[in-house]
Amino acid sequence: MRLALIAAGLLAAAPALADPLPSWNDTETKSRIIAFVESVTDPSADTFVPVKDRIATFDNDGNLWAEQPVYFQLIFAIDRVAELAKADPSIAQSEAMKAAAAQDYKAVLASGEDGLIEVLAAAHTGVDTETFIESAADWLATARHPQTGLLYKEMTYQPMVELLRYLRDEDFQTFIVSGGGIHFVRAYAEEAYGIPPQNVVGTQTVTTYETAEDGTPRIIKQPEIFFIDDKAGKPVGIDNHIGKRPILASGNSDGDFAMLEYTTAGEGPRLGILLHHTDAEREFAYDREGHVGVLNRGLDEAEARGWLVIDMARDWGRIYTGKPKDAE
Amino acid sequence: MRLALIAAGLLAAAPALADPLPSWNDTETKSRIIAFVESVTDPSADTFVPVKDRIATFDNDGNLWAEQPVYFQLIFAIDRVAELAKADPSIAQSEAMKAAAAQDYKAVLASGEDGLIEVLAAAHTGVDTETFIESAADWLATARHPQTGLLYKEMTYQPMVELLRYLRDEDFQTFIVSGGGIHFVRAYAEEAYGIPPQNVVGTQTVTTYETAEDGTPRIIKQPEIFFIDDKAGKPVGIDNHIGKRPILASGNSDGDFAMLEYTTAGEGPRLGILLHHTDAEREFAYDREGHVGVLNRGLDEAEARGWLVIDMARDWGRIYTGKPKDAE
Ligand SMILES: [Ca+2]
Ligand SMILES: [Ca+2]
Repeated sequence: MRLALIAAGLLAAAPALADPLPSWNDTETKSRIIAFVESVTDPSADTFVPVKDRIATFDNDGNLWAEQPVYFQLIFAIDRVAELAKADPSIAQSEAMKAAAAQDYKAVLASGEDGLIEVLAAAHTGVDTETFIESAADWLATARHPQTGLLYKEMTYQPMVELLRYLRDEDFQTFIVSGGGIHFVRAYAEEAYGIPPQNVVGTQTVTTYETAEDGTPRIIKQPEIFFIDDKAGKPVGIDNHIGKRPILASGNSDGDFAMLEYTTAGEGPRLGILLHHTDAEREFAYDREGHVGVLNRGLDEAEARGWLVIDMARDWGRIYTGKPKDAE
Repeated sequence: MRLALIAAGLLAAAPALADPLPSWNDTETKSRIIAFVESVTDPSADTFVPVKDRIATFDNDGNLWAEQPVYFQLIFAIDRVAELAKADPSIAQSEAMKAAAAQDYKAVLASGEDGLIEVLAAAHTGVDTETFIESAADWLATARHPQTGLLYKEMTYQPMVELLRYLRDEDFQTFIVSGGGIHFVRAYAEEAYGIPPQNVVGTQTVTTYETAEDGTPRIIKQPEIFFIDDKAGKPVGIDNHIGKRPILASGNSDGDFAMLEYTTAGEGPRLGILLHHTDAEREFAYDREGHVGVLNRGLDEAEARGWLVIDMARDWGRIYTGKPKDAE
């Protein structure tokens, strides 16, 4: 009798009864992810991976949150230039800067690469990193997406937030490896994804250590690019920051190809994941063409390389962490 | 009776009864370190710091292990060039490379800055990071210090190993922020200090992502310097890798001044620590002059800035993790 009670108590407490990925449909994609995690965390399996080697890396734009119609960081940059131009209108000299100051998004995009770089540089530099992160966090607290009406930070993908949490519950360390700016991503990654600043790898401007006249030391963002964390830069960024080959890597474009190639080339169990944007109704549908998230080689080679391709329309029961206005 | 037994059991299990720093003498230095840690971990104190902000950064050479007569990494570089020259004698063209190939340490040192850079570059580049780390680990497993007869990795400081463990037991995250090469330090930091690769910040060469003819992707170390993690570079490296101002920083030379300045300028409780090499008998005595570990501004300003200065001879009951031969 007493043993039966104890056994019942043990069963009731078993965490395996809860679905770790409730926003994922019950497709093969979900099964493969769970099978991989169970294979590396089962101490009796020859695929077992010690806790210290359970490193998982995630691309951010179009992988953990949306990236249409343009990278959200670019919209932030335009809004920030408009803010800065209010205080000092003299910064809006070029056509691109004038367009940004007027928050004319289309005109900024039409100004070409040089114009975009000028706007991005003006928005991201000449300020200390702590102040910059505050300004990005302030923007993220209020700015809304033109189509969904959601805060941008509500356009994080609920299924990926669950996957990150599931991996951490299984003693993985989760990292973001983003082509976006490292300080911009850090402004919201801890709140949105549970990923602290030291687990964010990203593109970096040069920064300098400077002591103000009152003796206060700060890290100042400069306009020059220090490191581009994209394509072949992603495995390099991983080596710089983490120093260890991940066992799981997840991305959505050919900018992630090298990261997945590097990850899955390691010995032992490995999982490469590509998110395929197939859901024009609930999100956006795009892959082989466009100005963001272009995915060609990944789609062509995923099957031969054993990479898992998430079909958003098929595999996800829910898209955003936030609830779109038209769904209310 | 039964309650008394339970109480006795609880008391026996209480961790506070154990001395967290047994190799430290009972001086004010030890008291101040423990008082700081208790002040930031006591939830009822207004100096309490949440776990996520308990970041502690440590210089490595001369702070976590010895650095006399020269940085151990330079001895490794000379030994590695000698090894490489055995396989390919043609690499030893210059006077410095010839001296290194002959393991004539004094002649390499006498070859000047250009010669040292040539030897360091030859030892650290043209190889993938995983192979490089293996070769450094192999060297550290056998190479011995000329004066102590200890393995270099036994010349880590036992009191600092205890301090690192104590901080982690109190939910700090411990990082190395070293002027030494990031991959060299990673070769032994986990075993020696309990610090995993992703918590090592260091000087970096350029690295590139390259796929071999058989399809194997690797990170290759190139001869150019990418980032120098010294002086003002230390706070910059901290911002890049950690993204958060530490609350405790520890170093031994003016190369750490900016790191301590940056750390202790933050709001709330902060601790800056300088290790003063005062023990000619058990270790080495040096400060204001020399070719490694020069400490001037730090000694001059420590008191005014409230930084704690460890007097090695006075404050440490034991020096090395390993036992010197003459002590056997
Ligand atoms: Ca992406
Ligand atoms: Ca040092």
